[in-house]
Amino acid sequence: MLVLQHTAQKTFLTEDFLLRTETARQLYHQYASTMPIIDYHCHLSPEQILNDTQFDNLTQVWLYGDHYKWRAMRTNGVPERYCTGDASDWEKFEKWAETVPYTMRNPLYHWTHLELLRYFDIDILLNKDTAREIYDECSAKLKQPEYSVRNLLRRMNVEVVCTTDDPIDALEAHQQLRDEEFDIQVLPTFRADKAMLLIDQPGAFAEYVAKLAASAGGTIQALDEYLQALRSRHAYFDAMGCRLSDHGLEQVYADDFDEATVVAIFQKVLAGEVPTPAESRMFKSAMLYWLAQWDAASGWTQQYHLGALRNNNSRMTRLLGPDTGWDSIGDFSQAQALTRFMDKLDSTDELAKTIIYNLNPCDNEVIATMVGNFNDGSVAGKIQFGSGWWFLDQKDGMERQINALSNMGLLSRFVGMLTDSRSFLSYPRHEYFRRILCNLIGNDVENGELPNDLPWLGKLVQDISYNNARNYFGF
Amino acid sequence: MLVLQHTAQKTFLTEDFLLRTETARQLYHQYASTMPIIDYHCHLSPEQILNDTQFDNLTQVWLYGDHYKWRAMRTNGVPERYCTGDASDWEKFEKWAETVPYTMRNPLYHWTHLELLRYFDIDILLNKDTAREIYDECSAKLKQPEYSVRNLLRRMNVEVVCTTDDPIDALEAHQQLRDEEFDIQVLPTFRADKAMLLIDQPGAFAEYVAKLAASAGGTIQALDEYLQALRSRHAYFDAMGCRLSDHGLEQVYADDFDEATVVAIFQKVLAGEVPTPAESRMFKSAMLYWLAQWDAASGWTQQYHLGALRNNNSRMTRLLGPDTGWDSIGDFSQAQALTRFMDKLDSTDELAKTIIYNLNPCDNEVIATMVGNFNDGSVAGKIQFGSGWWFLDQKDGMERQINALSNMGLLSRFVGMLTDSRSFLSYPRHEYFRRILCNLIGNDVENGELPNDLPWLGKLVQDISYNNARNYFGF
Amino acid sequence: MLVLQHTAQKTFLTEDFLLRTETARQLYHQYASTMPIIDYHCHLSPEQILNDTQFDNLTQVWLYGDHYKWRAMRTNGVPERYCTGDASDWEKFEKWAETVPYTMRNPLYHWTHLELLRYFDIDILLNKDTAREIYDECSAKLKQPEYSVRNLLRRMNVEVVCTTDDPIDALEAHQQLRDEEFDIQVLPTFRADKAMLLIDQPGAFAEYVAKLAASAGGTIQALDEYLQALRSRHAYFDAMGCRLSDHGLEQVYADDFDEATVVAIFQKVLAGEVPTPAESRMFKSAMLYWLAQWDAASGWTQQYHLGALRNNNSRMTRLLGPDTGWDSIGDFSQAQALTRFMDKLDSTDELAKTIIYNLNPCDNEVIATMVGNFNDGSVAGKIQFGSGWWFLDQKDGMERQINALSNMGLLSRFVGMLTDSRSFLSYPRHEYFRRILCNLIGNDVENGELPNDLPWLGKLVQDISYNNARNYFGF
Repeated sequence: MLVLQHTAQKTFLTEDFLLRTETARQLYHQYASTMPIIDYHCHLSPEQILNDTQFDNLTQVWLYGDHYKWRAMRTNGVPERYCTGDASDWEKFEKWAETVPYTMRNPLYHWTHLELLRYFDIDILLNKDTAREIYDECSAKLKQPEYSVRNLLRRMNVEVVCTTDDPIDALEAHQQLRDEEFDIQVLPTFRADKAMLLIDQPGAFAEYVAKLAASAGGTIQALDEYLQALRSRHAYFDAMGCRLSDHGLEQVYADDFDEATVVAIFQKVLAGEVPTPAESRMFKSAMLYWLAQWDAASGWTQQYHLGALRNNNSRMTRLLGPDTGWDSIGDFSQAQALTRFMDKLDSTDELAKTIIYNLNPCDNEVIATMVGNFNDGSVAGKIQFGSGWWFLDQKDGMERQINALSNMGLLSRFVGMLTDSRSFLSYPRHEYFRRILCNLIGNDVENGELPNDLPWLGKLVQDISYNNARNYFGF
Repeated sequence: MLVLQHTAQKTFLTEDFLLRTETARQLYHQYASTMPIIDYHCHLSPEQILNDTQFDNLTQVWLYGDHYKWRAMRTNGVPERYCTGDASDWEKFEKWAETVPYTMRNPLYHWTHLELLRYFDIDILLNKDTAREIYDECSAKLKQPEYSVRNLLRRMNVEVVCTTDDPIDALEAHQQLRDEEFDIQVLPTFRADKAMLLIDQPGAFAEYVAKLAASAGGTIQALDEYLQALRSRHAYFDAMGCRLSDHGLEQVYADDFDEATVVAIFQKVLAGEVPTPAESRMFKSAMLYWLAQWDAASGWTQQYHLGALRNNNSRMTRLLGPDTGWDSIGDFSQAQALTRFMDKLDSTDELAKTIIYNLNPCDNEVIATMVGNFNDGSVAGKIQFGSGWWFLDQKDGMERQINALSNMGLLSRFVGMLTDSRSFLSYPRHEYFRRILCNLIGNDVENGELPNDLPWLGKLVQDISYNNARNYFGF
Repeated sequence: MLVLQHTAQKTFLTEDFLLRTETARQLYHQYASTMPIIDYHCHLSPEQILNDTQFDNLTQVWLYGDHYKWRAMRTNGVPERYCTGDASDWEKFEKWAETVPYTMRNPLYHWTHLELLRYFDIDILLNKDTAREIYDECSAKLKQPEYSVRNLLRRMNVEVVCTTDDPIDALEAHQQLRDEEFDIQVLPTFRADKAMLLIDQPGAFAEYVAKLAASAGGTIQALDEYLQALRSRHAYFDAMGCRLSDHGLEQVYADDFDEATVVAIFQKVLAGEVPTPAESRMFKSAMLYWLAQWDAASGWTQQYHLGALRNNNSRMTRLLGPDTGWDSIGDFSQAQALTRFMDKLDSTDELAKTIIYNLNPCDNEVIATMVGNFNDGSVAGKIQFGSGWWFLDQKDGMERQINALSNMGLLSRFVGMLTDSRSFLSYPRHEYFRRILCNLIGNDVENGELPNDLPWLGKLVQDISYNNARNYFGF
């Protein structure tokens, strides 16, 4: 084990990291730390889980596909070649290691060292001087069986993993994992973004419709067949244990629509015509509504990730594709479409359990109060204000989400943390979240703002860490 | 007295609750705590004050009409029957008591226990185990004369209560309270929302106009008579001691208008026609402007509560009516209409003293700087950034309002706290506010950010707690 | 030296002001405090520097032109006569002194006493009792040679001053300061707001065009000549050492445009016609884009100050002109225009180094993530999220900017503080910023959130205080 040479006492990333009061330490160590992880939303590859992949080196598992790290490197003046280009794995790692000390106060600094510590027992700081030994040690370990993908999950006490999947996905890996009764539940999530959003690109839409037809079996010539095919995929996902849908949108679409017009729009686009902006919005509004009805009928939970402004850098997006680090936070209005959307569903009792994630922290209070409008007593915490997402998935963002939820709703009914990650090394952020949660509650106790009732507060912490998700989703 | 059985020392809700430094404790106990309360905006019933109502039990005074508690219960999975339905008073209380431990970190947890302590000397925590004894003890006390409505107000050292009233209200209770020289001033507030907003509903508007005509004496067939009637009510309110108006709006209406068009819109709607959106906005813009002129002429203070998104859940609003817990925070733009509105009034020196309350905390800085544009030296603190309102009426919300006001204006000239409440048990939130205020100032002193000048800081605290309101409103 | 009579120990504005941990104190005193100041954006008068002006009294240097102080005085109920009117310098100072104790918690309270201490060695609090002695002592000092404008800058260890100048400015003072090899670099900044924004006022625009023609030599009859003239001024500024442009806008203009239409708009306005709103926006969009291309070609840094809502009080603006304290924070959307604007420039590799300042703190996260979209590894910290500006230039505002930047980008690459001030006494706010920065980092270390690596953290602090700006701007 690589150990930090301390001239003095170790102060960073100790056992009590982020736990600034005695109460916080008790809550974390006695109640939170041992709860299993339900990762109800992530972007892990089910194929890699099925294949129990071993990685060749630290760069492959840590830097490939990690746009957070790329953004930091680019801001630090590192050429693209070392981010997504043809530099060697070691060269890329070296540039990352040089960048790490410049990331102090960015969540990457914490993620990085927490991941080195929890997965690799490495307790020294990553920088250009330590790069080589850390790279070598981690890469060596990664080749051992206990560092296979499945063992990485087991090491973190993961109980459920919900991947993110397109309706046309065959879910073969999920099926095989079920068949072999893998000890961790790996469940699909129904994410039909393409089924709605491609309407603006007739060529791509037609292609998607064809693939869907193949996936569902049959042909699709009109809207009713399109919906039928999607619905059959929804049912298939359900049979595969899926209990969640997900949507990534700038804003919810909630225009009025009538089915006849939507039928015509579908026909028009399938014939190769670009829809007008109003037609586009109407189609998306209708699709979003119908998909939500199915979620309600199936008892699923639907997730809405709102407010990202994507692919801002068209030059680099053209070169590298989406999700490569050119996205940012938008300043869209959210409240009015969201209330129209949920109200319409609620009025016929078809509003499914719902989680709303906002990317702009300014929307925290809007969302935290919006969810209360549709909590009708039927299910505890039915409509949820989702955990800090993407750029907000850091200490300040989590604290603001937890505080807004506390002030405007019931923290006690929160389903808690998820990774939303592509990386098998990202699970320590559940630990990170739990420490932050325990610290906030601990502060309140020691400031006299909460009673010093450790068993009850311990129960709340365990509920938020695990039990609430267990009960809410019905996996 | 019900006393908390402490296994260890009492830590929650002590005498020094929220006062984390010695300076804060001195400021609160020596300066703030004994100042009387001027509750310049609330929704108490003047009839209940006149009748010196006694409540039968704790549910009646505490849960009836309290949509904050209902929202928490619904989020906790409690069926509607126990919120607004036909369950017995005890059953409702029991469900509320079960919910209370789940409200930790929500302001309800603090309000609840502060109210039990200050009104009923109950120092144990409310939960399902203590529900029965607390209910019985409080209900017994409520039947005693010292728990009459007037004595509840006296117990809290209330000096002025400003209720919220429609122009058509006869103000009989206010009149009788004046006649009998009740030792607490109970003054009306002119809230003419219906006189503007009903324009969109011709039937309801005609009904309102008829009632107004009856209230003012005379008939109303045209806009000039309508305005005359409203103005006579404004004068009557003034004669009854009213010094405040109030408006609850998503955004200020500040479209350009000409009187001839507004005359025609009035006529059209009275004839049963629905106005166009532009006509509707123009009518509201004109009304808001004229009402503001009257406020200026009368030396009143006008209040604007901006940014609520109301009645989001149409199913439940249909069942239960407005103000039953289905409202949330909107994300409207506020700055441009607000500046047009105030500037037009200011340009003819008809801008009354004004308090602007925002519901979305993102607007704090917009409002805190906007008020500075119309502070022209004529009155200290003429335009005020109002205290944390509704969802923001909690520790975090109050601190953010106080900090934004401090950074962008003069905290020292702030007219301070109000309850905005329907409940006779809500007065401890003045204490809550004062503790938070003293704590913030105390922190600054002990961090070396303010000089340790207790007499001056004590004066500021007393000004904000009481003197500024006393001097500003001219009751 | 005026010394505070302490009944007890001095606690306010000590040597360790704002430095709450031992680490913070070490970082500030050992690393930050001695770094020179690069004031890369301010509104100082180059003529006063050239003339090495001496001020007659404290009011002249401190209150003339300071709309921050005027706003506070007006809010405190001080008549306009004492702000901008014909009261004597002493009377104005007296009213300001009376207001100062009412500014506690406003940044003015800190600025005021920090400036008295650092420039005048005055360590007593300003109020009506101390007004006379402070006024007399400061005014006497101001007449001594060591209080000349140049010596005020030297006293603060200023190395570079970038003034803000219109393209038509002759830059004579800058030229002469270069010629005499003044030991502080005084460089112009190209601020072409009028060249774009006057398009809406044909008369004023024609006048501006004529002045520009005179300044550049030649005549201007059409757009190409207009651009040529501006470009020649751009080149002249560059020759004078200018390395920055600046723009003050509500939002970035980024409409599509074609040059032929812009040619016609220019002709139409020069002929005296008011452009349509769409034409106006198109003209501004085109100008903003062309100016940005020139900045890129010259290797300059471009600055955008976004989100002020100006001249809200038309009555007072008419009386006193702009920049007299009637401006506030707007709630404009920023993200979409900003991304269109930068993306278009980036797509042809013509996006210059850029600093974006927002006035609404709600936009912090939008801007902090937006800059990451165009950091492509070519220059470390190429696109910068600017320091807390105007209303945000205070402790809370700076902390929020630093934290948002830390969480969503690389604080380590930040070019740091500027004064943006008209006052020669404003330089202690660099000290203020550095103390706040050191305090935040010190807290993180002592809370175990950063490693206790003082040399590295000291380097980061020095980089942000000075080195980054030195390297970034290329003066």
